[in-house]
Amino acid sequence: MATKKKEQNHAERLAQEQKAISVSQFFERNRHLLGFDNPIKALSTTIKELVDNSLDACQEINILPELTIQIKQKAEKKFIIIVEDNGPGIVKEQIPKVFAKLLYGSKFSKMRQSRGQQGIGVSASVLYGQLTTGKSSKITSKIDPKKPAHFYELHIDVNTNEPEIVQEKEIEWLNKDHGIKVEIELEGKYQRGRLSVDEYLKQTAISNPHANITYIPPDNKVVKYLRGTKELPKEPKEIQPHPYGVELGVLIRMMKASPSKTLLHFFTTSFSRISAKTAKEICDKANVPLNTKPHTINHQQADALFNSIAKTKIMAPPTNCLSPIGEDVLTKGLKKEINAEFYTAATRPPTVYRGMPFQIECAFAYGGDLKGDELMKIMRFANRVPLQYMQSACAIFKSSQQTAWKNYGLSQSKGALPTAPMVAMIHIASVWVPFTSESKEAIAHYPEIVKEIKLALQECGRKLAIYLRRKKKDAEVERKKSYIIKYIPHMGEALKELLELTDAQSKEIQVILKQQLEAPPEEPKVGTTVKTK
Amino acid sequence: MATKKKEQNHAERLAQEQKAISVSQFFERNRHLLGFDNPIKALSTTIKELVDNSLDACQEINILPELTIQIKQKAEKKFIIIVEDNGPGIVKEQIPKVFAKLLYGSKFSKMRQSRGQQGIGVSASVLYGQLTTGKSSKITSKIDPKKPAHFYELHIDVNTNEPEIVQEKEIEWLNKDHGIKVEIELEGKYQRGRLSVDEYLKQTAISNPHANITYIPPDNKVVKYLRGTKELPKEPKEIQPHPYGVELGVLIRMMKASPSKTLLHFFTTSFSRISAKTAKEICDKANVPLNTKPHTINHQQADALFNSIAKTKIMAPPTNCLSPIGEDVLTKGLKKEINAEFYTAATRPPTVYRGMPFQIECAFAYGGDLKGDELMKIMRFANRVPLQYMQSACAIFKSSQQTAWKNYGLSQSKGALPTAPMVAMIHIASVWVPFTSESKEAIAHYPEIVKEIKLALQECGRKLAIYLRRKKKDAEVERKKSYIIKYIPHMGEALKELLELTDAQSKEIQVILKQQLEAPPEEPKVGTTVKTK
Repeated sequence: MATKKKEQNHAERLAQEQKAISVSQFFERNRHLLGFDNPIKALSTTIKELVDNSLDACQEINILPELTIQIKQKAEKKFIIIVEDNGPGIVKEQIPKVFAKLLYGSKFSKMRQSRGQQGIGVSASVLYGQLTTGKSSKITSKIDPKKPAHFYELHIDVNTNEPEIVQEKEIEWLNKDHGIKVEIELEGKYQRGRLSVDEYLKQTAISNPHANITYIPPDNKVVKYLRGTKELPKEPKEIQPHPYGVELGVLIRMMKASPSKTLLHFFTTSFSRISAKTAKEICDKANVPLNTKPHTINHQQADALFNSIAKTKIMAPPTNCLSPIGEDVLTKGLKKEINAEFYTAATRPPTVYRGMPFQIECAFAYGGDLKGDELMKIMRFANRVPLQYMQSACAIFKSSQQTAWKNYGLSQSKGALPTAPMVAMIHIASVWVPFTSESKEAIAHYPEIVKEIKLALQECGRKLAIYLRRKKKDAEVERKKSYIIKYIPHMGEALKELLELTDAQSKEIQVILKQQLEAPPEEPKVGTTVKTK
Repeated sequence: MATKKKEQNHAERLAQEQKAISVSQFFERNRHLLGFDNPIKALSTTIKELVDNSLDACQEINILPELTIQIKQKAEKKFIIIVEDNGPGIVKEQIPKVFAKLLYGSKFSKMRQSRGQQGIGVSASVLYGQLTTGKSSKITSKIDPKKPAHFYELHIDVNTNEPEIVQEKEIEWLNKDHGIKVEIELEGKYQRGRLSVDEYLKQTAISNPHANITYIPPDNKVVKYLRGTKELPKEPKEIQPHPYGVELGVLIRMMKASPSKTLLHFFTTSFSRISAKTAKEICDKANVPLNTKPHTINHQQADALFNSIAKTKIMAPPTNCLSPIGEDVLTKGLKKEINAEFYTAATRPPTVYRGMPFQIECAFAYGGDLKGDELMKIMRFANRVPLQYMQSACAIFKSSQQTAWKNYGLSQSKGALPTAPMVAMIHIASVWVPFTSESKEAIAHYPEIVKEIKLALQECGRKLAIYLRRKKKDAEVERKKSYIIKYIPHMGEALKELLELTDAQSKEIQVILKQQLEAPPEEPKVGTTVKTK
């Protein structure tokens, strides 16, 4: 008989090597996926994540944001980033998880427009900091003017994706009612230019003109972006998911977990825009009784209900979950930071992709300080956050390229942006912006989104065309006038001699001729001969 | 006195909404990040993940792979994917986690070349299947010819990212020694063409000529890719990380967790290429005693050691962790699937980026059935896996564009690929391929990698140039010959008249003239006058 000692076969040997990977380990190694590809981008991503969070926090409590952003250079490649806000602060117990656990947050499953959406950004910055400098991050939070602040030094345990508290204490935070201050040390590189922190903050000031932003770059030359309006953005409301956006697997899961006693109750309470009548229509078409208990639905019935939703006409989702910037504030924002000669803006009505409400806005600044021999510049924004990287992969860029700019009086090479002294600012507001990657740099090419962007560009384009036509006409008249004006003195002299006028009479005639010239050009008289072909 | 009932402030209200997000929830919503953007890609990604896993599994036990891939169409947009292999199988206890838990696997932290690296792909396919069809996936595994197989029906609990076992049982799997069979039902779209499953499998056969692959597409017209070699790929060995690739945060973590009693022991056992002498050099430069216990090292000392590693000359990492395809097998692979007139291949020596060994290989097929009026086609491979999407974002594509193809006799517009009847196959083998996204479609632009790709292309380019020059010369001779040959009969006639030859003599002269023409062109005689400027 064979010995009892079991020989391991291949599968058993391999089994010992299988193990769970924490999401921290995954993103530590794949940090380029989160925008930490290189030292320049790492610095800018960290500031972006912190500023986005601060602006979201201020919006939560409807307060005008007061932000301070500081970049301290510690060594050639080492920086300390400090961002402070006047938001609500974070309660003591939540601080470690919010800052030192990836995939933790409040915005992920909410159907409401916000800057953050995944619960990754800030902790990823903390993770990047500790990876490159070995240092833990420092958080100070105050939630009440009458209470002390809480200070934490935090580290992420990469093997478990759980926070490690290095230090915690109560401290005094004078002259502060509430807010957060975050300090992250990291390896980075600071530079100015198109993809810089400076540019990011300038654009943030444009899309958030209700915020005061103080920026202290490494050279300590403070830049202050003062608010251009005290009007707070409209508060976006949370909505229920729209039935057109739900997938079969999710529908099944929702029904399994539902405490509802009937499908009628389930449909009308779990989704937006399903009335009792619509619920009945869905169930009838699927041949499933309206009073069935949702958690007893079998796969075949679920499939039938799912198909029946697609065949039922359901109202578009409510759009009070969106908070567009608005034409007026868009123009104000642009005027504040760009010195141009013409501004225009358009906010499109909200619409829907995959059951998700979204809304496109657009604003142009033309002429003035802008250079005419370059391609039009695009500033892209998603939920008021400037997008700096991966422009050419973005639906906003594609839509801009595909617009026929010649129709609006601009010159354009085939498949390129127009050549014009112009900045186009394009904003998408949505409960869920479909980014092409976690680093949130480019918008995916949903046909509905591309179409809306084009319509917004065209709307602004038409207003620009009117301005440009008038400007061209004015310039034409001016050119003719200046041409004639040169000869008025000579005409005065000639008339003087012919008609034997006095000097005074000659001067008077010159004045009259000039006045005639200044008058608006006459319409051609009725009866004027017009050459026909 | 104030009532004891505490009023909630903003921060406390907001705290209740904070919660952890499971990695399944995250990827369910962001499934485009894993290659499930649309039904066409979803189908192809699923097959790719399953095939990659099967080929890796066969490699683990050094067996010639026998794979069967079937796509069954169930409804217009519903498909069942079935992939079966002859790998080692997976032990019963591990099956649920391997197939129904994201971020679970054996390859993540191994420094060794393999197709999979993240422990996401297969579970993501299961997740996508259940999301779009509500169906669980079916797995059959057999690990021993003498034991029954295990059958599982699995579902992922999205809220917890843990497997849910829908059904499990022992079954008979006749005529099978060991292997895995996976069945996933999903929403997809099947099409042929450049980005199809068909193309993916064809390219897989090229880069894995040791595999037998049977493919049953929806129309049941079976395609068989038979192996072109019985030689197994060289088994890649696992190596220790190279000190140049380690970051400060990771170094600190390694020291904290190290059971070593001295830095000497720590350095020489935790890294590749650190000898006792090198360890001493590192510690001396950092001014930290060689016998310090690693877990007692403070931050300042760690920083000093980290900087000292960068300043110490350390041998490049061992490269037996890599398993290149090899020039001979590359050419065989190309010949098997592409009917061309010229083939060449080059395998570069291994080198290093960020402490990670990698190796570039390249092969060309030129002429024959390939079309001459199109841009050169690129086939990209990473660890033998064909890359189909995001070509223009890939370092392989960039390097190909930046190569001066005119030097090798091909016509090329500025910044474009050459126009030539050619396929270039480029393979990167590495312990960690730096993909630009989790969907593993494009290689990041590390300068070391770009440089090596260019060198490989140039190496093949030079061999191609020699062939093309010879071909051109031959064609030139041929052209001249055909030109003269036309006149031979006339010359024969003329000579016949002039010299009063018989018909036979005339024929003979014509034959002699032809023979002269067929002879290799004479070298110009010494003394031939050459015009000088």
